[in-house]
Amino acid sequence: MSAQSSYSSHSTGFHKTKVTAIPGDGIGPEVMKAVQRILAAAGAEIDWEEAEAGAEVFKRGIATGAPQETLDSIARNGIVLKGPLETPVGYGEKSANVTLRKFFELYGNIRPVRELPGIKTPFSGRGIDMVIVRENVEDLYTGIEHMQTAGAAQCLKLITEPGSERILRLAAALTQAEGRKKLTCATKANIMKFTEGMMKRVFERIMPDYPDLEPSHMIIDNCAHQMVIAPEQFDVVVSTNMNGDIISDLAAGLVGGLGVAPSSNIGDHAAMFEAVHGSAPQIAGKDLANPTALLLSAIMMLRHIGDFAAAEKVEQALLVTLEEARNLTGDIAPKGTGVGTTAYTDQVIANLGRTSGFASRAYQPLTLPQWPEGVWHHPPQTREVTGVDVFIETGAEPPALAASLQTAVAGSGLTLKMIENRGVQVWPAHSGRPFLVDLFRCRFMLEAPRDNADAAIAQALAGIGAGHHWMHVEKLQRFDGRDGYTKAQGEN
Amino acid sequence: MSAQSSYSSHSTGFHKTKVTAIPGDGIGPEVMKAVQRILAAAGAEIDWEEAEAGAEVFKRGIATGAPQETLDSIARNGIVLKGPLETPVGYGEKSANVTLRKFFELYGNIRPVRELPGIKTPFSGRGIDMVIVRENVEDLYTGIEHMQTAGAAQCLKLITEPGSERILRLAAALTQAEGRKKLTCATKANIMKFTEGMMKRVFERIMPDYPDLEPSHMIIDNCAHQMVIAPEQFDVVVSTNMNGDIISDLAAGLVGGLGVAPSSNIGDHAAMFEAVHGSAPQIAGKDLANPTALLLSAIMMLRHIGDFAAAEKVEQALLVTLEEARNLTGDIAPKGTGVGTTAYTDQVIANLGRTSGFASRAYQPLTLPQWPEGVWHHPPQTREVTGVDVFIETGAEPPALAASLQTAVAGSGLTLKMIENRGVQVWPAHSGRPFLVDLFRCRFMLEAPRDNADAAIAQALAGIGAGHHWMHVEKLQRFDGRDGYTKAQGEN
Ligand SMILES: NC(=O)c1ccc[n+]([C@@H]2O[C@H](COP(=O)([O-])OP(=O)(O)OC[C@H]3O[C@@H](n4cnc5c(N)ncnc54)[C@H](OP(=O)(O)O)[C@@H]3O)[C@@H](O)[C@H]2O)c1
Ligand SMILES: NC(=O)c1ccc[n+]([C@@H]2O[C@H](COP(=O)([O-])OP(=O)(O)OC[C@H]3O[C@@H](n4cnc5c(N)ncnc54)[C@H](OP(=O)(O)O)[C@@H]3O)[C@@H](O)[C@H]2O)c1
Repeated sequence: MSAQSSYSSHSTGFHKTKVTAIPGDGIGPEVMKAVQRILAAAGAEIDWEEAEAGAEVFKRGIATGAPQETLDSIARNGIVLKGPLETPVGYGEKSANVTLRKFFELYGNIRPVRELPGIKTPFSGRGIDMVIVRENVEDLYTGIEHMQTAGAAQCLKLITEPGSERILRLAAALTQAEGRKKLTCATKANIMKFTEGMMKRVFERIMPDYPDLEPSHMIIDNCAHQMVIAPEQFDVVVSTNMNGDIISDLAAGLVGGLGVAPSSNIGDHAAMFEAVHGSAPQIAGKDLANPTALLLSAIMMLRHIGDFAAAEKVEQALLVTLEEARNLTGDIAPKGTGVGTTAYTDQVIANLGRTSGFASRAYQPLTLPQWPEGVWHHPPQTREVTGVDVFIETGAEPPALAASLQTAVAGSGLTLKMIENRGVQVWPAHSGRPFLVDLFRCRFMLEAPRDNADAAIAQALAGIGAGHHWMHVEKLQRFDGRDGYTKAQGEN
Repeated sequence: MSAQSSYSSHSTGFHKTKVTAIPGDGIGPEVMKAVQRILAAAGAEIDWEEAEAGAEVFKRGIATGAPQETLDSIARNGIVLKGPLETPVGYGEKSANVTLRKFFELYGNIRPVRELPGIKTPFSGRGIDMVIVRENVEDLYTGIEHMQTAGAAQCLKLITEPGSERILRLAAALTQAEGRKKLTCATKANIMKFTEGMMKRVFERIMPDYPDLEPSHMIIDNCAHQMVIAPEQFDVVVSTNMNGDIISDLAAGLVGGLGVAPSSNIGDHAAMFEAVHGSAPQIAGKDLANPTALLLSAIMMLRHIGDFAAAEKVEQALLVTLEEARNLTGDIAPKGTGVGTTAYTDQVIANLGRTSGFASRAYQPLTLPQWPEGVWHHPPQTREVTGVDVFIETGAEPPALAASLQTAVAGSGLTLKMIENRGVQVWPAHSGRPFLVDLFRCRFMLEAPRDNADAAIAQALAGIGAGHHWMHVEKLQRFDGRDGYTKAQGEN
């Protein structure tokens, strides 16, 4: 089932598509109004349903920043155009943007990066034209943090097989829909073989399903480097959440910055389109804001709902306006010629129907892979527990700690194999001189395979807990005969 | 105690400083030889002690890629100039570079990024001149990964208070030593309040100790964006390990790429200087390699050991050579004028004593903060355990899982508070539609404060383990009255 058909069932009457419009904070309402005027003038058949989110909602005490009516409107319509949202200091721990992405599982963040006429940058004329596809819900953004000791903080980086497959298939579908060829997967798989390596392995597994594409893998730091050295080499780049966050902002900078950068957030049940910039409170309400980024986002939305004609018409009018550089807003206008949001919007409307020197792509409908409902669960054929890592807070030196742990676990069926500090084995000692903090990971192995590893672990933990603060436990598991845990630096 | 004096105790005789030279793999030996010739011609008083590391060492079966004699030489001399090292596929899990950094706790990776004469880039003429200081041993690079289920991978991101303080004080000392003012700390503290927030908080705590500096904080994605939009605004930028990895490669790209990028890796007991590029095996042994990056690294080394005169002389000769663009290696020469490594080296030597149009900084000795030996341990005044997070593998839907867990922990003193999947609360349910994978985090809270939380946890785990696969446990701790754990998206 294509994304297009899955959303069109929400449309009202014959033509009009219902879209949830969230004007948001700061300059949001102004740029939203400008975009709605342009889309109406272009004949886009949209039935807007306005909904609230952001600063005012937080201040009314709603900790998510989005009231139930807004969530219901999104669930009903499945398509959202959104202005910037603020999270006022002191209200709620989480941003309303992240809430919307997470609640609706908008797992694909799509950021087109294309040279625009009239927007001068050091890379102008080189034909930069790429799309960054960033995984939007996993990775460090799951926000799972635990202080291990008063001075040692931990965040879990989680990457799953289905999460990787979903974003990679979305990236491949997008590459095809835009008539592109090269799909670059950028990870740090060389250092994080399990997590970042997960995305790389899934990429290698599924790319044979797309024989028309040209897949390649690049280390993320080299990717950032290449983007500055030779950005025109990239077509579609897909990455994990944190790394994708950095390179998508980098890439936006190559073509003029966040102020003209559009984006979409795509999931199985909803798609949300928004400018990358924020609420620019300093210029809010002054008819100074540039609506280009939200307009480019709305053009993405039009293509997403299948209205390719209106998308094309609005895009060409915008490109003509930028090309001719008449009546642009102050942030992008030639010196001394800046006009207001309203006058710029009028100019774009006046240019509807004209064609720019910039070619358009032959866009095709984007067909999103559909996933079964229910919990993704692929248990291994065989599994085995071989030991346990116990994280301990102590000020003791490694030899003393080791001696005390050996005594503590005696008789449990587990034996101390090694102790490490921030990834480097410190017992048995090697010849290096690591700096030690009060968080030690102590690895215990089962002396013999056994069915009730849990009992051995429980006994060991009881022994350890009698003399030490432990705060974190990881079972050492083997799945289908392969170790599901890495070794410490220096561990044999 | 300054770094300079701490190392000078290793020097031999009156003048000569003993330096461990690791030529390394591929083009390493050629560029090392070139640099040694230039330093000798400049009168730098160095007594080289050659040592082995890299591909050949791995192939002899030494899993670290560095034999004991090399480690001993580094421990003895404290100063290393190193060529690129390869990790041959199939030998050892860890790279020899990472091993050296970790074993000697080289916690500060310093990457100067300065526009060079004759190296044309889109940013030429804008006067880019910054230093990226990257934390080099913590964060995701501790390499602690555990498969939670067969389809869900986890890596621990660890950031400690002393680790942050060490790198931040190094960055501040470097800013002062180079006569700079602005120090920008780049983190993702807005999303990872504990880990990335740790570096931000320590930055805010210690910066009053440096009233001559101008400190500021920037979100890392915005930093990547600003580096492309307005790189000349940056002076010294300090960041956590993974983020620093990406922005340092990005920044190198702004001034000509990794091929001319030097670096140092600094610790309490050793400092290692190396080019950022790799072993370029395609051109190895052909007298084609450009020694500039290693030469720039050697200039950093000369300043580090206090030989400012030789550093200045070599740097000016190099700058004159680049300025005049005669006898450059093929990678940077004007079309058709490239020469070999040897001829380029001869040209630099011929230019020793000349002065370029490029000003030199007034470098001062770098004074590294000294840290006490022993385990860093700052226990809190008060501590409390309030509950436990248990990570469970299951294909069950959240309501069924919740019911079974409630039964499993009955009588333990712990109560199920919520269940989340990849950071989003799924029980009690909210109105979103998250995609579920087979890894659930289940949060249990103690019904009443108690001293022996361990006993309650043990009883609960036994109950849970009877019906479920658990693989990971995190105690919920409060330190000095503050929660040491974050809430899930949607959790109250
Ligand atoms: N997706 C989102 O909802 C989102 C994204 C980012 C930030 N935010 C929120 O927005 C608030 C402000 O964030 P921020 O100041 O970091 O970033 P920002 O709102 O993007 O503003 C930064 C600067 O960029 C310029 N700018 C941005 N958009 C513009 C436009 N459409 N037209 C003209 N100029 C524009 C303005 O520069 P001049 O001052 O030079 O005119 C503005 O001061 C914060 O509360 C933040 O959390 C929300
Ligand atoms: N710190 C380190 O020890 C370190 C760092 C990075 C990589 N490595 C290792 O080095 C090996 C090769 O890595 P790689 O191919 O990714 O990167 P690389 O060795 O830096 O080579 C990439 C390309 O850059 C050019 N290049 C690099 N250094 C040059 C120099 N000094 N003079 C002239 N051209 C130079 C060459 O381009 P042309 O082919 O166009 O001439 C080369 O093919 C791998 O085994 C890798 O693990 C080690």
